[in-house]
Amino acid sequence: MIGVLGGMGPLATADFFQKVLAATPARGDEDHVPMLIASDPRIPPRPPAILEGGASPLVALRMLRDRLIDAGATALAMPCNTAHYWYGELVGDCRVPFLSIIDASCAEVAPLVAPGARIGIIATRATLATRTFQARLDEAGFVSVVPDDAAMATTVLPAIELVKAGRPREAGELLEPAVARLLEEGASAVLLACTEVPIALDVIGSPLRERCVDTTAALARAVVRYWTESSATR
Amino acid sequence: MIGVLGGMGPLATADFFQKVLAATPARGDEDHVPMLIASDPRIPPRPPAILEGGASPLVALRMLRDRLIDAGATALAMPCNTAHYWYGELVGDCRVPFLSIIDASCAEVAPLVAPGARIGIIATRATLATRTFQARLDEAGFVSVVPDDAAMATTVLPAIELVKAGRPREAGELLEPAVARLLEEGASAVLLACTEVPIALDVIGSPLRERCVDTTAALARAVVRYWTESSATR
Repeated sequence: MIGVLGGMGPLATADFFQKVLAATPARGDEDHVPMLIASDPRIPPRPPAILEGGASPLVALRMLRDRLIDAGATALAMPCNTAHYWYGELVGDCRVPFLSIIDASCAEVAPLVAPGARIGIIATRATLATRTFQARLDEAGFVSVVPDDAAMATTVLPAIELVKAGRPREAGELLEPAVARLLEEGASAVLLACTEVPIALDVIGSPLRERCVDTTAALARAVVRYWTESSATR
Repeated sequence: MIGVLGGMGPLATADFFQKVLAATPARGDEDHVPMLIASDPRIPPRPPAILEGGASPLVALRMLRDRLIDAGATALAMPCNTAHYWYGELVGDCRVPFLSIIDASCAEVAPLVAPGARIGIIATRATLATRTFQARLDEAGFVSVVPDDAAMATTVLPAIELVKAGRPREAGELLEPAVARLLEEGASAVLLACTEVPIALDVIGSPLRERCVDTTAALARAVVRYWTESSATR
């Protein structure tokens, strides 16, 4: 089974589950990927740990990882971009494959755009501060563009909180202009690099969605691909 | 954490997860119920085991139950009405509380209707054959009404298969007249007693939904209530 380190936040984990199901070519129950999904909202919040020296979630993440493996997970995924700051530490001593949302998402960018294109990134301030996505896009020859401080403070961050508060429609209305602005500034595509963000844009049926790379859906597709390929060799 | 015996089917389990989140009065991640959700579509199918002497899922369900408890589940729920045929055997030697979808759903019927009312039931042929819901409704002084054989064969059962095949909209269009017919035949409310069924009626935004008791949502509300009450005494 695929183990899922989730609850960061719970709505994003549920969205990931739905997107794994949607990415599976299934005619019935038996074609679906067996999953063991932990949605544990007690994991310490990621942004304060990165930006303000708050309590690290690493111990909790390691415990959850091992609990999933002990319960039968033969591979892992974690639908939270910010938590991938600890990916290296989580994967270092991990007994099973751990699919990266960063790898899965960045792999979906190149086929969509021209070489050297500008790529927008919508993410938490913490994810942007770690420069995980910017470094990957740089390496691949792309140019990153991110919302300015004012847009982060008045649209992106409040929208993420609105999704976590169960108000995704308001979040979508707040976020859509921030995505539009990155596209107007020359981005060829926008990475939705926080798993709360696609929920908000999906619920309002934003037409800008087709210009975006959904990191949740990218990880879901990677999970289905991994399961299908590893099943073939079992 | 609440352990979920799921994958029967996977889409119903994802719908249950969403309904637990929707039933939680949360302002942020930390207000949500910690959950450990197993979506295991390899559990032997329930209807053939009940109706045709097929392989019983009981051994698989017991293993999944114990695996969830070993991984930290302090209470359990199983969003599949048909699988509740084995509820007595699952709960008999269970080390933690196991919330019943039958209890949760039947408790939601009485406040909606007049004493002695007719209550429609949409369920698998197996769930109807076990008479679990009919017996409960009888005890409470209600009169059960179920779709006739033709309606079962041409609408209810194909609709359940369509949801499992990822085609909930077609399923909803097929199901809605079956629900309408039960209401025309004098049912005051209709129990959606198969967890695939509410998905189908939700996706088409059926106006009949408000005359229905959603067993998935009833179990979700029971889980949130249980978690809230048991947290207060922890």
